[in-house]
Amino acid sequence: MQSEIRKKLLDAFTNAGEIFLSGQHLAELIGCSRTAVWKHIEELRKEGFELEAVRNKGYRIVKTPERITADEIRLGLATNFIGRNIHYEESVESTQKIAHRLSNEDVPEGSVIIAEEQLSGKGRMNRAWHSPKYSGIWMSLILRPNIPLTNAPQLTLLTAVAIVQAMEEETGLQPVIKWPNDILLNGKKVTGILTELQAEADRIHSIIIGIGINVNQKKEDFPSELQEKASSLFIESGKLISRAGLIRSIFKHFEKLYLLYLEQGFFPIKLLWEGYAVSIGKILKARTLTNVIEGKALGITDEGVLKLEDRTGVVHHIYSADIEV
Amino acid sequence: MQSEIRKKLLDAFTNAGEIFLSGQHLAELIGCSRTAVWKHIEELRKEGFELEAVRNKGYRIVKTPERITADEIRLGLATNFIGRNIHYEESVESTQKIAHRLSNEDVPEGSVIIAEEQLSGKGRMNRAWHSPKYSGIWMSLILRPNIPLTNAPQLTLLTAVAIVQAMEEETGLQPVIKWPNDILLNGKKVTGILTELQAEADRIHSIIIGIGINVNQKKEDFPSELQEKASSLFIESGKLISRAGLIRSIFKHFEKLYLLYLEQGFFPIKLLWEGYAVSIGKILKARTLTNVIEGKALGITDEGVLKLEDRTGVVHHIYSADIEV
Repeated sequence: MQSEIRKKLLDAFTNAGEIFLSGQHLAELIGCSRTAVWKHIEELRKEGFELEAVRNKGYRIVKTPERITADEIRLGLATNFIGRNIHYEESVESTQKIAHRLSNEDVPEGSVIIAEEQLSGKGRMNRAWHSPKYSGIWMSLILRPNIPLTNAPQLTLLTAVAIVQAMEEETGLQPVIKWPNDILLNGKKVTGILTELQAEADRIHSIIIGIGINVNQKKEDFPSELQEKASSLFIESGKLISRAGLIRSIFKHFEKLYLLYLEQGFFPIKLLWEGYAVSIGKILKARTLTNVIEGKALGITDEGVLKLEDRTGVVHHIYSADIEV
Repeated sequence: MQSEIRKKLLDAFTNAGEIFLSGQHLAELIGCSRTAVWKHIEELRKEGFELEAVRNKGYRIVKTPERITADEIRLGLATNFIGRNIHYEESVESTQKIAHRLSNEDVPEGSVIIAEEQLSGKGRMNRAWHSPKYSGIWMSLILRPNIPLTNAPQLTLLTAVAIVQAMEEETGLQPVIKWPNDILLNGKKVTGILTELQAEADRIHSIIIGIGINVNQKKEDFPSELQEKASSLFIESGKLISRAGLIRSIFKHFEKLYLLYLEQGFFPIKLLWEGYAVSIGKILKARTLTNVIEGKALGITDEGVLKLEDRTGVVHHIYSADIEV
C-alpha cells in the first residue's frame, strides 16, 4: 500500500515535468490525505531527491539522487510491465540468485532485481564478474515466455540489441555485439549478459536474464588483469552517465523488442541484431564443450545459431561456445 | 563426522546379514571407540530399528522401522552415488522446492530429498499431487549430466524404466509406462515423474527428478475423485511393501541405467523403454500447447520423441503433450 502511493506520486511528478503540483492536487490524484503526501515527499528527500517547494504552487522534482533507487527508476519509466516491479538491494551475493528465488514465488513477469554491488557476481560458465559499488548496473530480469526450451538463447541476443539501443540513446556511443552475449566498445567488454532458466523437461517456468554493465568506473577501478579487456561507458565517452536513465531506456527498448518477439518470433530481432554484430565476416575460433572450430562467421540462422565456415567450406552450426576473434 | 560413523555402521550390518558383530569388531572396522559404537546403536534403536544383542556374540539388526529413515535406506544400498547423500524430512511443502534450493548449494550429484509427506506436492504443469504421510514415496533426485537441454526429457523415460524394474523386483507386479511420465497398474496411475531443470541458455546446471509413488495406501485413502484413476502397490498386490526396500532398488536400477545412458546415449534406454510402454500401437489423443492431434502411436524416436500417425498417414513428432488413450 505504502509503495503503491509512492509509485503514484512518482508517476504524477513524471507526467508533470517542470510543472508544480500542489499537495491538495496530489492528494486527490493519489486518493490519500495531504498528510500522507507530505510524509512521502519527506521520504523522497531522505533518499536523495531534491524537491523545490513554492508557496501556492506546490512541489516539483529538481534533482534525483546519486545512487540508484527504485523510485528514481520509476520516475519517468515508459513501460507496462518490464521494470514495473523493482526489488532493490544495496549489496548482494548475486542478483541472479535472488531472481531464481523470487521467480519461484510467482512475482509478475518483468520483475527486476537491482543491486548497487555484487559480492560474487557471475558470468557464463560460472566465471566471476566484477561488480563494484555505485559504478555499474547489476540487475536480473524475470520473464515467463511460452517458448520452447531451445529458443532460450534467442533472448540473450534480444537483450543485447535492447542494451545497445539504450546505450546509443543515452550516451551517443556506438557499441557492437560479440556473439553470443558480450557488448564491446573499442574492442573492450562493457557488458555481459547471462541467460538462465528454470523449466520442466519440456516447458519453461521462467527465464532469468542477468545484465552487468560497466557504467561510471574509471580505468583504475578495474583490477589490473581486466584493464586491457574491459572498459566502461565513462571511459569511452568521458561523461558520467545516469544509471537510472540508462536502466529506464533499457527497459523501454527491451519491452518493445520482447513484445515484437512474442508476436512475430525471432526473425525481426535477427535483422536488428545483425546490424550491430561485430564478428560477421571475420575469422573466429569457437571453443565448444567438445572441440575447437576455426572459420569465417557467416552470420546467424533464423533461430539465432552461429554459422561458421571452415577452410574446407563446411558450414558448422554453433549452439554454444566461447569465441575468440 | 557423526553421520560418517553411522554410514559405516550400517554398511557393516549390511555386509554381515544374519551374522552377529561384536562391539569390539565394529569399533575396529569403523575406527572409533566402543563407547561411540554403543551410542550409535542406541540412536538406531530410537529411530525404530530393533537390534538383537547376545553376550559374547554382539549385535545384529532384526527389524527396520516403519517410517522411512535415511539410515534404513542406507542399510543395504548398492550404489556408488545415487542416494548416497540423503536429505530426509518428516513434512515439506514439496521435495522439488528443497531440491532446487540444494542444487544451488553444490550438493553432490545423486543427492536425494525424501519426505514422509508433502503438503503441496506438484506434478507436471503445476497440477497437485496427493502425498499423504507414511504411505508413499515422495522424493527428488539431483543430477548434473553434461547433455544438451533438448535431451532432458529422455531422463523422464529413463527414470520410468528404473522404477518399473524396481517394482517388478520388489513386488512381482508388472507395471506399464504411459508416455511420457506415468506408470500404471490395471490402467490406474501408481507413479508420476516430474523432470525439472536449472540451466544457462545453452548448458544444464542441474536436473531435478521428482518421483511420486503410491505404495501402501488403501483405496479409501485416496480422495474420491482419484479412486477411479489412481491406485497403489498395496491395492494391486494385496501386500504391504517396504518403502525403503523399493527406494534402494530404484536407486540401484537408476544408477545402472544412468551410467549406461551417459556412456552410450539414449538408444539402449529406448529399447528397454519400449518393452514396458503401454500405448504403442494404440489410438491416442495428444493435447499439445497449441493443438490436439489424434493418431496411432508408432513408438518413440531414437531421441525419445513420440511419433503419432494421423488418419491421413502424416506422422507427427510430439515433444510435449497430455495423452488420452
